[in-house]
Amino acid sequence: MVKKEIAFRPIGLVHSPFKTGENIDPLRNVRPNGFSKIEGVIEVFKPYAPGLKDIDGFSHLIVIFAFHQSQKGKLSVKPPLETRLRGVFSTRSPHRPNPIGLTVVRLLSRRKNVLKVSGLDMLDGTPVLDIKPYTPRDSKRRLKLGWLEKRSQKKKEN
Amino acid sequence: MVKKEIAFRPIGLVHSPFKTGENIDPLRNVRPNGFSKIEGVIEVFKPYAPGLKDIDGFSHLIVIFAFHQSQKGKLSVKPPLETRLRGVFSTRSPHRPNPIGLTVVRLLSRRKNVLKVSGLDMLDGTPVLDIKPYTPRDSKRRLKLGWLEKRSQKKKEN
Repeated sequence: MVKKEIAFRPIGLVHSPFKTGENIDPLRNVRPNGFSKIEGVIEVFKPYAPGLKDIDGFSHLIVIFAFHQSQKGKLSVKPPLETRLRGVFSTRSPHRPNPIGLTVVRLLSRRKNVLKVSGLDMLDGTPVLDIKPYTPRDSKRRLKLGWLEKRSQKKKEN
Repeated sequence: MVKKEIAFRPIGLVHSPFKTGENIDPLRNVRPNGFSKIEGVIEVFKPYAPGLKDIDGFSHLIVIFAFHQSQKGKLSVKPPLETRLRGVFSTRSPHRPNPIGLTVVRLLSRRKNVLKVSGLDMLDGTPVLDIKPYTPRDSKRRLKLGWLEKRSQKKKEN
């Protein structure tokens, strides 16, 4: 019963400078600020525009989207610059059982149904499923980063 | 084309102390640590368990889930303890065009396909769509919180 399919309908679209995955330097992924200066636009389809009321006062938004160019269903993936396979739920790979992506962007401005944002790492044409305000509860400190930590140590040693 | 439905299949299930929405004190929602001590379990369905490899080293996980008891499609909602209607994308309401939820939990331990976590705010039986590692890129500071800021100021004045 709980395992049945759940269907969502895109509420908008990402306009991004990244036209294909090859446009994205994999080194960006290993830098915490790798995408912070990437600007673009989130276009919310007109029927959903009333849902954007009150959003202007927030500095950061959580954008939930569909990885529309991914291969579905992988359980082990090789992250950028990695040589080992990792369990997919310990990675942000687009190739996952449900190809759902999540990026926290900075809201620069809004004009009607169009949000200008920075911090984009999505491809152009990515379907947006939801937009949420980023709140203090989402901001965690003192993180442990598993295999990612080993990776950044290795980078420092080199 | 981009507006067509996208279907996902739950990869797991939340076991939570909150059996119904009425079990959740709305005051928890206005405190940043309102749910931090709530413990529970995320059960990943066995076929997806191999995807949990390498997850143990992470302190925090992003859980993406379906609000399975929400009313779909609202564009204006009245958040807990609020009197004014707010645009749904400026709220974390479960009642939204795509009833997708997101919570950052702390990973306490894993035993095979079962994750023990704290920071749960989901109802018991919530279908889980995805699990991702929380990384430094998700941790934002110097937030502006729009109408939520006004709310907390009001709370302080009272």
